[in-house]
Amino acid sequence: MQKLKLGMVGGGQGAFIGAVHRIAARIDGQWDLVAGALSSDPARAMASAAELGLDPARSYGSFTEMAVAEAAHPDGIDAVAIVTPNHMHAPAAIAFLEAGIHVICDKPLAATMEQAEAIAAAAAASGREFILTHNYSAYPLIRQAREMVAAGELGEIRLVHVEYVQDWLVEDTGGKQAEWRTDPARSGAGGCIGDIGTHAHNLAGFVSGLEVAELSADLHAFVPGRQVDDNVHVMLRYKGGAKGMLWASQVAVGNGNALRLRVHGTKAGLSWAQEEPEKMTFTRFGGPAQILTRGGPGATPAGLAHLRTPGGHPEGYLEAFATLYAEAATLIRGGTAEALPGIGEGLEGMRFIAACLRSSAENAAWVAP
Amino acid sequence: MQKLKLGMVGGGQGAFIGAVHRIAARIDGQWDLVAGALSSDPARAMASAAELGLDPARSYGSFTEMAVAEAAHPDGIDAVAIVTPNHMHAPAAIAFLEAGIHVICDKPLAATMEQAEAIAAAAAASGREFILTHNYSAYPLIRQAREMVAAGELGEIRLVHVEYVQDWLVEDTGGKQAEWRTDPARSGAGGCIGDIGTHAHNLAGFVSGLEVAELSADLHAFVPGRQVDDNVHVMLRYKGGAKGMLWASQVAVGNGNALRLRVHGTKAGLSWAQEEPEKMTFTRFGGPAQILTRGGPGATPAGLAHLRTPGGHPEGYLEAFATLYAEAATLIRGGTAEALPGIGEGLEGMRFIAACLRSSAENAAWVAP
Amino acid sequence: MQKLKLGMVGGGQGAFIGAVHRIAARIDGQWDLVAGALSSDPARAMASAAELGLDPARSYGSFTEMAVAEAAHPDGIDAVAIVTPNHMHAPAAIAFLEAGIHVICDKPLAATMEQAEAIAAAAAASGREFILTHNYSAYPLIRQAREMVAAGELGEIRLVHVEYVQDWLVEDTGGKQAEWRTDPARSGAGGCIGDIGTHAHNLAGFVSGLEVAELSADLHAFVPGRQVDDNVHVMLRYKGGAKGMLWASQVAVGNGNALRLRVHGTKAGLSWAQEEPEKMTFTRFGGPAQILTRGGPGATPAGLAHLRTPGGHPEGYLEAFATLYAEAATLIRGGTAEALPGIGEGLEGMRFIAACLRSSAENAAWVAP
Amino acid sequence: MQKLKLGMVGGGQGAFIGAVHRIAARIDGQWDLVAGALSSDPARAMASAAELGLDPARSYGSFTEMAVAEAAHPDGIDAVAIVTPNHMHAPAAIAFLEAGIHVICDKPLAATMEQAEAIAAAAAASGREFILTHNYSAYPLIRQAREMVAAGELGEIRLVHVEYVQDWLVEDTGGKQAEWRTDPARSGAGGCIGDIGTHAHNLAGFVSGLEVAELSADLHAFVPGRQVDDNVHVMLRYKGGAKGMLWASQVAVGNGNALRLRVHGTKAGLSWAQEEPEKMTFTRFGGPAQILTRGGPGATPAGLAHLRTPGGHPEGYLEAFATLYAEAATLIRGGTAEALPGIGEGLEGMRFIAACLRSSAENAAWVAP
Repeated sequence: MQKLKLGMVGGGQGAFIGAVHRIAARIDGQWDLVAGALSSDPARAMASAAELGLDPARSYGSFTEMAVAEAAHPDGIDAVAIVTPNHMHAPAAIAFLEAGIHVICDKPLAATMEQAEAIAAAAAASGREFILTHNYSAYPLIRQAREMVAAGELGEIRLVHVEYVQDWLVEDTGGKQAEWRTDPARSGAGGCIGDIGTHAHNLAGFVSGLEVAELSADLHAFVPGRQVDDNVHVMLRYKGGAKGMLWASQVAVGNGNALRLRVHGTKAGLSWAQEEPEKMTFTRFGGPAQILTRGGPGATPAGLAHLRTPGGHPEGYLEAFATLYAEAATLIRGGTAEALPGIGEGLEGMRFIAACLRSSAENAAWVAP
Repeated sequence: MQKLKLGMVGGGQGAFIGAVHRIAARIDGQWDLVAGALSSDPARAMASAAELGLDPARSYGSFTEMAVAEAAHPDGIDAVAIVTPNHMHAPAAIAFLEAGIHVICDKPLAATMEQAEAIAAAAAASGREFILTHNYSAYPLIRQAREMVAAGELGEIRLVHVEYVQDWLVEDTGGKQAEWRTDPARSGAGGCIGDIGTHAHNLAGFVSGLEVAELSADLHAFVPGRQVDDNVHVMLRYKGGAKGMLWASQVAVGNGNALRLRVHGTKAGLSWAQEEPEKMTFTRFGGPAQILTRGGPGATPAGLAHLRTPGGHPEGYLEAFATLYAEAATLIRGGTAEALPGIGEGLEGMRFIAACLRSSAENAAWVAP
Repeated sequence: MQKLKLGMVGGGQGAFIGAVHRIAARIDGQWDLVAGALSSDPARAMASAAELGLDPARSYGSFTEMAVAEAAHPDGIDAVAIVTPNHMHAPAAIAFLEAGIHVICDKPLAATMEQAEAIAAAAAASGREFILTHNYSAYPLIRQAREMVAAGELGEIRLVHVEYVQDWLVEDTGGKQAEWRTDPARSGAGGCIGDIGTHAHNLAGFVSGLEVAELSADLHAFVPGRQVDDNVHVMLRYKGGAKGMLWASQVAVGNGNALRLRVHGTKAGLSWAQEEPEKMTFTRFGGPAQILTRGGPGATPAGLAHLRTPGGHPEGYLEAFATLYAEAATLIRGGTAEALPGIGEGLEGMRFIAACLRSSAENAAWVAP
Repeated sequence: MQKLKLGMVGGGQGAFIGAVHRIAARIDGQWDLVAGALSSDPARAMASAAELGLDPARSYGSFTEMAVAEAAHPDGIDAVAIVTPNHMHAPAAIAFLEAGIHVICDKPLAATMEQAEAIAAAAAASGREFILTHNYSAYPLIRQAREMVAAGELGEIRLVHVEYVQDWLVEDTGGKQAEWRTDPARSGAGGCIGDIGTHAHNLAGFVSGLEVAELSADLHAFVPGRQVDDNVHVMLRYKGGAKGMLWASQVAVGNGNALRLRVHGTKAGLSWAQEEPEKMTFTRFGGPAQILTRGGPGATPAGLAHLRTPGGHPEGYLEAFATLYAEAATLIRGGTAEALPGIGEGLEGMRFIAACLRSSAENAAWVAP
């Protein structure tokens, strides 16, 4: 099968997530990176492109230029990956959508709700695919958990507890990654809530199938002088009566990238932690806890759909991310990928951020997202 | 050393916690059980006493009778253990305190705030010791954690997360234990919040040294027809600026007795789980996680104070409970036991229950306890 | 029920295992310690007795004196606990057996095979009970594992892997505990093999139900100048065709008291570790791993026989040890206790030590125990 | 940087390890697969090539043909990956080496010692690189462990325990993977010992830096009718005085791909398990156990050399395998890769297999490899 051609906006030297996207795109061999506007700094963009072996003619000084040129290129890119700080998602995404190019975009969808809606409008008008990289939803056991919940194996869901806890912002240390994530002009009004809270919220909804009816949020910046929240406490009430709690933090010393989900229903409960993604605890009421493994006994079709190796040969973050690229390819080629997050999840995430900010500003009043 | 003499109110056949108290009292060899009013049902009281080898003359039909008789007995009991349902704590405790007998009482302190205050008044008037069996605070690593926090090893505390999660009430199954715990006439207006939420709250405060400034609570009964809460979500704001979350549940399928505490400060974080009480994870910012073990490297004086075996020879629930009895003996003999919970902790727990109920009734409004 | 009366030989101040026996005897309230020859040093014996509140008239200067006096005492001891270094087991045990007193003895049975056989002969002649405290066999999940194996739940056993690994003798540090255990005159010719290797061997046989046909052992003293082995490697061939490996060490840095057993059959496998004794992993071929818990789903009668608390309220080393004392009481009162280790297990352990020493002396030749 | 061109022998439809090699080669973007003789069955070879998008002109019917053609091709492959059953390694490797093409070969090196030596001779004569894919040695924490041992952080090594345990051959189930691995004509005389025992042996030596002086092996086929061993027990004596045990099994029910290494020295011990490769337990004598994480506190240069993501973003089997390809590229481009396994490790592995077979045939006599 012919490979698809990928462009990238952002992700130059010193970036973290750009390299992740490139590896993810390579893993299943369905994409070739052929063009980029890798930095808003033209010199860095060129240097980055050279390092990656891009044709210099397709290393652009701006995404605007790139969108136009690639749309006109006889062998132009099929899709662009947008891996910039949040405030640049909207202008870049809209430029490519308007040029008729599919978009794969980092989360959260945008820095503001207005931007988010503008992207949604552009996506709808363009008829192009828009994929949002909520990569944690692509872990095989998460796909399986979702399928088990949907099949009723947990009974009626009563409780959803999700947390995403880190410690890298425990002090005001600076660094490229920290800098833009704590600058409201680039990250949006939410800090921790946007950077990782949205992942937690997305994962909880993805697996449980539940929608938040209302929430009560207490956001806080513990580090003196920080302009955005670095810790997030939320109580959740889901439609249908389930309840939940969400904790996101960037100041909880001793935590690396601790995204953890627990779902409890009338019949069974499950627990999964991103840092040990190859196993999931599943317990039926009155039965022993079972350790389900990727591709192991009890695996469901969704849990088996993207195995690259048998269980016991640990797959991880990059493989889950690669599944997004594999499914994006499928989608662009006309296939289906029902679990792949898109513009809907993006808007939902933005509404969640906004609701948390609004609730917190009103002393944790209950608000509907 | 002469053993102390113990009486017991409640704890007859079919009870759970009475047997725990008796084993705990025996472990360190400082107590002899010599008298009891083991059940409100006189026949059961006698049968239970016989089973335990009590002198029939000291097996009483009521605690009132027992308090009077033992106070007058030339070799009367030094202390009484009260292990009845909550609504009986107050009348029993007051009877013994007024008779000049020390009291060791199960938690929560009482079924109502009025009862709690009456106990407090009686305790103050009597000059006797009043010990409340918040047994989880007596685990050696919990004592050590408290000491580490107090010594500043975690820096300034920012976050406290505590949860106490079970699944035994996931259905409306009945049974002696379930019955009174879900009957507001006997347990008090709180269900899960009183039964285990108070343990969680106590543990969080015990280790962190923090007092709750205000809380926002969402209590719920998931099981149809249940008259008291079976799930508790609370957001916490501590005096001094720390924040926290508390989750208590009796309907989270797959959880046995999962009490877990995490405390994060500016310098370090720690994590401990009651079901694996012999280890605690402690991480200094920028350092590797350390697995601290009971009595192991880094143990503090409080962590070493009640070792019965070296690390690697697992101690557990009963040994922690026994430490309460050992310290009660020390106190009664005129020594000190600064970490032993008493009337102050009991009142604080009752105020916490009341505040949660009040907040929840007001749609999770912030209230001060 | 009337309590039984216990005497103790050894276990004075500074001893480890004596205190363990005393707590174990107290936990279930069936024994009263009333007499002792607590040290071979008379002054220490008296001081220890006073500390324990023993009647000074029943604190003896020697076990010989004690055996005679207690046999003649109108309210003499029912049984004696022998908790001395190994070389004193035989003279003490024989003295009490000949006096008609039941014996509860620490393992290994003796320092030499000749002593062991003399004990066996005395036990047979006396008609008294002889209990050997292979305490690890009394953990509820170990009892359950044995029952599951016997019931064929694992199919035909193919593999048994057991290890008992510590690090406290990694250097030549001295101390009362280390001293006698590394002195062949007191511990016997085996060091690590006798002290903990026998526990491992006993546990493997207890659960698997298998007998060793032949073994190949490589014993070694890593610490310069040490006169007994501190590390033991053994390959095992069991009767019936199963195979196994045993590793015991006192010099494996980072290990506390790491006794771990794995048994694999044609249908299922199980794994259990003493330092986390409340759970056992059980996996049927083709099924998910199950985490079985003490008293939890799937518990067998043997696993339920000695519960003091529900699962989730951790029991441990002392409770398992207490089960030996509870069963000893049952046995002495005329009941049965089929899993309780006795003289047979003692002799088997001694033959195992001897076989390992013989094999190792012959460059790990295969020898039958 | 220009990508290197890779060919592949074996790895057609239905193969496991071929796909792994292809992903590993893609992950770091340094290789393009451009040619193949993907199956000994020409039809399957063609179909597999088409599926992979290979130029049909470079899909060969035999490796002999391929070696000749690619050597002559103006843009011929830089290296070939040989992923056939063991008995084909030698003819294929020799053909490519003689054609001047670098070789990346699966382990064990060959089916017989004669073949292994022929490969070694061809490699030496060719001046080409020969890389053996002992992929487990490329995990970042394994590289770090090796570096820590070499730096003396564990003191003098006393003990090495390694095990590699699976259960997929517990029954005689057939299937393409099982079939050739249990056929001595294709796998060589060793079954489990060659397939996974060599990985365990390699890992132990890689980290400890020790060479086996002599070994005593007990190999066995538990499954009736099986012609090669499916379980391996080995006692090891290393040069310099350290001792070890190795267990490899394909019939231990409940184990997936459980490769586990423990190394203990005079100063510290470490433990690592392949199924949770992102952490390693490291304990200094007298200190608490530390959980070292990939790239985390305490990471050494070798542990940091191939990070693709920060810790907490789990990397696994494919990333470790990719490191071999990245280092192979470095080597071929004239750089150095001192930890990359090659012909020396291959011969050592073959000698280890032979020694185990010889020892086992002589009733576990000690033999030098």
